[in-house]
Amino acid sequence: MAIYNEVQVQQTLIGKLKHGGDLLEELTSVCERNGVSLGRVEALGAVKKARLGFYNQQARKYDFFEIEEPLEITGLIGNISMRDGKTMVHAHITLSDAHGRAYGGHLAPGTVVFACEFTIDVYKGQQLRRAYDEETGLPLWKM
Amino acid sequence: MAIYNEVQVQQTLIGKLKHGGDLLEELTSVCERNGVSLGRVEALGAVKKARLGFYNQQARKYDFFEIEEPLEITGLIGNISMRDGKTMVHAHITLSDAHGRAYGGHLAPGTVVFACEFTIDVYKGQQLRRAYDEETGLPLWKM
Amino acid sequence: MAIYNEVQVQQTLIGKLKHGGDLLEELTSVCERNGVSLGRVEALGAVKKARLGFYNQQARKYDFFEIEEPLEITGLIGNISMRDGKTMVHAHITLSDAHGRAYGGHLAPGTVVFACEFTIDVYKGQQLRRAYDEETGLPLWKM
Repeated sequence: MAIYNEVQVQQTLIGKLKHGGDLLEELTSVCERNGVSLGRVEALGAVKKARLGFYNQQARKYDFFEIEEPLEITGLIGNISMRDGKTMVHAHITLSDAHGRAYGGHLAPGTVVFACEFTIDVYKGQQLRRAYDEETGLPLWKM
Repeated sequence: MAIYNEVQVQQTLIGKLKHGGDLLEELTSVCERNGVSLGRVEALGAVKKARLGFYNQQARKYDFFEIEEPLEITGLIGNISMRDGKTMVHAHITLSDAHGRAYGGHLAPGTVVFACEFTIDVYKGQQLRRAYDEETGLPLWKM
Repeated sequence: MAIYNEVQVQQTLIGKLKHGGDLLEELTSVCERNGVSLGRVEALGAVKKARLGFYNQQARKYDFFEIEEPLEITGLIGNISMRDGKTMVHAHITLSDAHGRAYGGHLAPGTVVFACEFTIDVYKGQQLRRAYDEETGLPLWKM
């Protein structure tokens, strides 16, 4: 069965990240400064370069790779919750190059912002916490 | 002219789907169990394999195809409404492979969840119902 | 530092665009008719053809290109704000072709709707206005 919580949107943050910053770290920093313990995030914009992960479902580990060129962020979708007492932004991203070809994966540190506009919905209600999941090897939500 | 309703978010459901379940069926099931008749959904995660549709605009029918390998869900965007008295989740999905290449299409039954985190905004207000649209051959919203 | 506003969702518009219309113009028109000065938009559907932009970060100008075939919209993510007193919808889009291959970029006029279902969250609160940004050459938000 699916497991999930019923929550309410407390407020929404809409704005832009710093040019030259690390995309994942900057989003995490916005959440930390605003005490966001549960929420969702979306973003669009462009990056100078990207570092992404692909989860190897057999080996149960992330393989990371870099795309060393400017790319459009055609869509970033993610959520915010707590893991081991720390704010964790979990985001996946779709990017496109100068020829319009699309790429994507799990957003990793090392993706550098050229320009990025985000929306964060901050939720109030019962929390979701991440812990090791034996079935997948991933840090998933436990109730 | 565009046609649309003004609605309010009643509540938001945030959680994860069952490992090994059918992505479209599991999302539909969450909506049914919560009586969601109008809403939006987004998700990220990974699938064991995917089955997608591409609408042939000339022939006015979906062509379905499968991608028989593990993929990241870089973004799922969809909505929930009623069609012939049943809950219908209409979702499109973007996926990426081990090389970071992106794929996408209309989410069809046969896409198997590895891990999937979703957010569903449940709307209250005037409903939208789907019915056959002559211009496109698709089940679109009628006012 | 990131800059952003705290806003509240006033209402949500959910509906579909006109078959054959220009995707960006139709979304802008919905916002104008509803007096949306700040918000977010997402959409899925299909287009008859697409015209997209890729921002050349070195030359500081958009390069535009067309994809002259039917495509699925696997995800459109954007925001709404004001620029020089006019409503500006800034959206990025991911598309997929008959083989499932994904493409993307900055949504430009010239993308023609086959079918498109959208959700617009209308925000109330302090506004964000766009103005020329020296660092990127883009019209970004200023506080």
